[in-house]
This record gives sequence, C-alpha cells and structure tokens, in this order.
Amino acid sequence: MLSKRVGDLCTPAFLVDLEKVKQNARVMQERFQKMGVQLRPHMKTHKTVECGDIMTGGSRCCITVSTVAEATFYADHGFDDILYAYPLPLDKVERCAQLSERLSLFHVLVDSTAALHALRQRPLQGGKIWRVWLKLDCDNGRAGVLYSEPLALLLAKDIWQSERVELTGVYAHCGNTYHCSGVEQIQAIAQQTTTLILQFMEKLKDAGIDGPKCSIGSTPSCSHPVPDMAVLSEVHPGNYVFYDVQQSLIGSCSLDDVAVRVLTRVIGHYPHRNQLLVDCGWTALSLDGHGRLPSGYAVIEGHPDLRSESQLSASSLLIYWYVPFPISPLHFPRLVSMTQEHGRVEPVSGNLDYSKFPLGSALSLIPYHACATAAMHPVYFVLSEGAVVDTWKPTRGW
Amino acid sequence: MLSKRVGDLCTPAFLVDLEKVKQNARVMQERFQKMGVQLRPHMKTHKTVECGDIMTGGSRCCITVSTVAEATFYADHGFDDILYAYPLPLDKVERCAQLSERLSLFHVLVDSTAALHALRQRPLQGGKIWRVWLKLDCDNGRAGVLYSEPLALLLAKDIWQSERVELTGVYAHCGNTYHCSGVEQIQAIAQQTTTLILQFMEKLKDAGIDGPKCSIGSTPSCSHPVPDMAVLSEVHPGNYVFYDVQQSLIGSCSLDDVAVRVLTRVIGHYPHRNQLLVDCGWTALSLDGHGRLPSGYAVIEGHPDLRSESQLSASSLLIYWYVPFPISPLHFPRLVSMTQEHGRVEPVSGNLDYSKFPLGSALSLIPYHACATAAMHPVYFVLSEGAVVDTWKPTRGW
Repeated sequence: MLSKRVGDLCTPAFLVDLEKVKQNARVMQERFQKMGVQLRPHMKTHKTVECGDIMTGGSRCCITVSTVAEATFYADHGFDDILYAYPLPLDKVERCAQLSERLSLFHVLVDSTAALHALRQRPLQGGKIWRVWLKLDCDNGRAGVLYSEPLALLLAKDIWQSERVELTGVYAHCGNTYHCSGVEQIQAIAQQTTTLILQFMEKLKDAGIDGPKCSIGSTPSCSHPVPDMAVLSEVHPGNYVFYDVQQSLIGSCSLDDVAVRVLTRVIGHYPHRNQLLVDCGWTALSLDGHGRLPSGYAVIEGHPDLRSESQLSASSLLIYWYVPFPISPLHFPRLVSMTQEHGRVEPVSGNLDYSKFPLGSALSLIPYHACATAAMHPVYFVLSEGAVVDTWKPTRGW
Repeated sequence: MLSKRVGDLCTPAFLVDLEKVKQNARVMQERFQKMGVQLRPHMKTHKTVECGDIMTGGSRCCITVSTVAEATFYADHGFDDILYAYPLPLDKVERCAQLSERLSLFHVLVDSTAALHALRQRPLQGGKIWRVWLKLDCDNGRAGVLYSEPLALLLAKDIWQSERVELTGVYAHCGNTYHCSGVEQIQAIAQQTTTLILQFMEKLKDAGIDGPKCSIGSTPSCSHPVPDMAVLSEVHPGNYVFYDVQQSLIGSCSLDDVAVRVLTRVIGHYPHRNQLLVDCGWTALSLDGHGRLPSGYAVIEGHPDLRSESQLSASSLLIYWYVPFPISPLHFPRLVSMTQEHGRVEPVSGNLDYSKFPLGSALSLIPYHACATAAMHPVYFVLSEGAVVDTWKPTRGW
C-alpha cells in the first residue's frame, strides 16, 4: 500500500511501530543467541505473517502458536517447525494429525494420559511420528502436570515408550511472572521455573530418558533471563514483540519499548457533565486491565514525565492525556467508562479545558494488554518514521 | 453448508439458536407493529447479513448501525434506509457523504455545531440532502446534547435552517435502563425518556419546526414499552435478537429467551489444585461482566432450577455447570479466571468430581453480554433443531 499519514486514518485504529517491533525482536533474538538457547517465538499476541517473519528473522521456522487456526494459518504461509502450545484438545486431534503429516515438524503438548491415548489411536501417515512435549506445571497453576506429582514422570515414560510417538521435550510456561513487580521478582520466578524443569530433566535421565529438550517461557522471564536459563534448549516468549503497559509495570520493559497504540479521536464535548467522548470503546481497546492499574486500561502517549512506573503507580488517573507541556496530573482527564464504541472521559478535578481537546483531535493510547487489544482489530496499521507503510491482517478463530 | 452435529464442532464455538432468534425478532416486530411504531433494529450486536434479514422481516430496509464499516457492509448487501447512530466523527464525513449519495436513505446523528458545519462543507451530489437526526441526551449521560440545555433547541433550529440538510428526527438512547432491575424500573426510565423527548418535540413545534420524527431505544425499554411510546415515530433496540444473562438480570427477558451460547470443552484435569481447565478464554467469551453478577461472566445451560434470576443473584457461583441431576449449588464448580485461551474452573467447596466432567466433554455457556461475546468470534454457528444448519460471518472494524 502507498504510504499514508497517520492523521488520515479513520479511528479507532491499531498502530504498530515497525522500528520498535524490529528492535524488540532483535534484542530477544540476540539475547538468547548469546546464551546458546533456541528462541521459539510465540505468535499469539499478533497472529500475523509479517510479524512472524520479523520474530523468526525471516526463516519462518521454529514458532509457537496457541490455536490450531494459527498453526494452519502459518503452515499455509510457509512456516514450519510449529509447536502448538496448548494441552491437546481431544476434538482437535485429527487437525493436528493432518498438520503433522503436512509439515516437516509439528509439535503437540500433552498433560494427560487421555491425550496420549488419543495420539496412539491416530497413527500418522507417511512415516511421520507424533512430536510430543510433556506440559509441566512448575508452580504456574494453569495447564500441565505438577512437577512434583508422580504422574509427571509416569506420563513422560509412557510417552517415551509409545510407538510412533516421540517425547520431544518438556514444556513449562512461567505465567506466574505476571504477578511480579520488578526484575528481582521476575528473576526469582525465572530461576524457580528453570530449577524445577532442570531437576525434572535429571529425573528423566535417571529413568533412562535422555534426549528430550526443555523449554520455558514468558515475556517477563525472557526479558530478564537468569544465567541458568542458558542450560535450557528453548524459550518461547511472545508478547515482547509488542510489549504493553502491563509489561512495563511488571518490569519487563520500559514504556518506551511498547510498539503498539490505539489511535482514537475526540467525538463529543459534554460540558453539562464535564465530560468528553472518544471513539475508543471496548471493541477497540478490550476490557483487559480494568482495576489492574491506577491509570486504568491504557496510558496516553506524549508526556514524558508521566511515563515512569512510579508515577503511574502513584497516580489515581485512569488515562493520561497528551498535552504539549507539563501540567499537574490533577488536571488530567481520566477514562471513566467504555461501552461498545464510546469512551467517556472526565477530569480528576476541575473543569475540562475543551480547547485542548477539540472535536476530531487524535489521542494515542498505550494499551494495558497488547494481546487483548490486538485481538479486537481485524487490521493493524504499521508505521515507519511516522507514516503508515503497511497493513497487517491477523488470523482469528480456533 | 451441510447439516452438522453440534458435537462435531471444534470449540470454543459461538452458537446461535435460529428459532430463538426468529422468535425474539418476531415478538419485537409484532409489539411495535401493534403500537404503530416503526422498528429500526440495531445491527451492532451481531453484524451479520442473515440476522439483519431476520430483524427486518426480509425487507433489508430501515436499520441502525454503530460504525461506518457496518453501514458499508449492509449497503454492499442491498440494505437501505440505514441510520448511523453515532455522533458524527469528523474523520468519517466523506465516507458518510458517499453512503448518502449511494443509498436512497442514509441518516447521520449530530450533537455539535462542529459536525453540522462539516456537513455543510460537504454538499451531497446527485440532488441528495443530508438526513440528520439530532442526538438528544435524555439523562442517559453518554452522547447527545442534554435535553434541557439551550443548545439543544439552537442546534435543532440550525439543522432545520441549513440548506441541503434535513432535520429528519430527534434520537435518544436510553442506555440508563442497563442499571435497572425489574420491569418497574425499566418502565420508569422508558417513561422518563419518552416524556423528555416528546416535550422536546413540543418545543420544536412551538419554534415552528414540525415534521421531524422521534426515536428512542434500548433493549430493556423496548422489551417493556410504556403506552406513551406509541406516540414515537421509531424505536431502535438491537441486543434483543440474542438477549443475554445481563438482559435477564435487568428483567428484559428470561434466560430461556437467550439465543446464544459459547460451546466449550474440558481440556484438563488438575486434581493437585482441585481445578479443571476449559478451552474458553477471553478470546471466546470476552471479559465483560466481570464482577457484575454473582455467577460471573456466564451461566451454564442445563439445570432448569438454576435458571431463575433470584437464584442467580443469591448465588456466589461464578459459573453454573451442566449436570444431569439436581445437586446442591455448593458443589458447583466456578470459573475462577480466564487467560487468552484458558478458563480455570474449581468447585465452590469440596472436591471436584472429575467423572462428571471428562476430558473432551462439552459445556454450554450463556454469555453475560452477547454483544461483547459475539464481537470475539469470526464465525457464528447457527443451530436449528439441534443441528448446525448455517454459518454467519459478521463484519468487523470501523
């Protein structure tokens, strides 16, 4: 598409800063290259071919996905070595079998005997074997067999001994880093997860099972890896390519690293209730982040003094607004509610100065959770040096 | 498409009960036909051609939309007489002009002098005139000029006197009915909105402005209209075609009237923490409803005793699960959290009886807010007599 000015876009619009995306991808790639660990980037945040290209350095090889729809979409676009990082749902065994038969490498995740049984019941054609990662719960508390349960080792042995099934690796997600605040806490979880998975690998070795890989991942832990993570075979973070306000509050990144925005415009002035409306409702921002941070669902780009974590935490504002000069936070408006297509904005105190927010003027929101916000948009507008240089279309569904 | 069993669908899947949709549409249509009021159904909840057909009785005429993308989508599919019920955003004037020139009737909403000015700056071709509805705020507190402000009458006069611009009507949304509980409260708001808009129409008449229509709408008020609403020209509800748990709690409908479900499956058993996982995360259900009702984001279909409002309100459960026989609510599991693709479920008390929820077994969730849940799905699976008889694809974007 032809280069277009950002100001010409109809709003709300999801903006992606191409340079920041490339930088975030490069930093993560180089970090784990230095550590000698294979990066298997997760596609779930953006679900686009173009961003997958950037995250794999153009190789279109070695990725993680969260749905079979994503796996199929990436396979259709020439990607290979795809890990479907989801406890294998029994209704999707056939689609996974077809992907396994079609790709040179397609991996599934298993955390139950029932799932393993389903794989055995569907032997692959063409001399292919099922590539299976045992999903281990290293105190994250979502999917996976708990590392300390006898079932973990039993299931690993069962996979290992199954015909036409390979125990390719052991996989743990350290999503418990999302409760962290600061690098120290993140690294404590990263260390704990690494230690637990490595101890489990030792147990496997003791049981005569040598060869399976091991992988952990989450954007916080992979943004601040501990030295022991160099022993891992792979890592699988995803959100880092965009980052967001949540990640900046956890301590994974600075707000400056966040590569995405929602562009919105002022659509109404309502002096009788001291409010204005913007054209960003929950269909454009999502409801994620509600009550999670003092500044609400998003942060407004523009005022450098307001970008630091501490100020964010100290503030009672729901949204910071762009203003071309420093003013007291007490006079910033806040987003008090969203409906499907409307956002209601009012000042924390005092009267709204409407001359600063004329009808039609644009505001740029930094999303609380980029995965949730991206999920609301059928098209992303990609910016480079202030111009719209491309549009990316994500896949959806399951 | 060929008829398919519901059980063959990959999950999560958004299900639409065709008979209930038709019934909800018919009841609303007949209700306002009897009252002599034009129904102009809102498309924002579903955004599909097929459901638009049902809501307009096949006429493809006289609808309301919330985005220009919807307006264009419906125009592309032969719909006409489309009202874009959103305070006219200045960045979309040109697209609205083109729709006005293309359709026999395309209406815009104005609540500011700036928007009117923008219309005057873009005279329509082909002898067309701008069809403008003044957006009036009858104490709803979102968009619109407040009914009691002098600006309301001034702006109406200004529209009326503008060349090539017609004051087609006055439009009010009574979204404040969403805070109601029960028919009495709904009807109080319906009466108040009706009274305020009719008083404003009198003011217009006194000012020599005779002829503009008037319209109010919201699913609660149109599900329980007051007699005075017979004086209105039009109503514009939308959610009623699906209804949802929220509407049942407000009192607009019974849970039996709700036409949509999210089908989900059990994907993991985690006895070490007394939980199970389902494949319904916020990408399939949305985060709407969080903290809004004791039963959380959704209600599980299946147990008739659990369908009544009072039991919902009295319960501390987040989600009711289908069980084939009556058991104490204390033993029902609840959805304690959702991530992008996972839902964590645990019992309120006692140990989960996993034999009742085998891996792969399906559960049917009634969404808290159908508009928000539908917005997450690229395809709806349409059921008739228990079989999937069609798929509907909504439009998205702005």
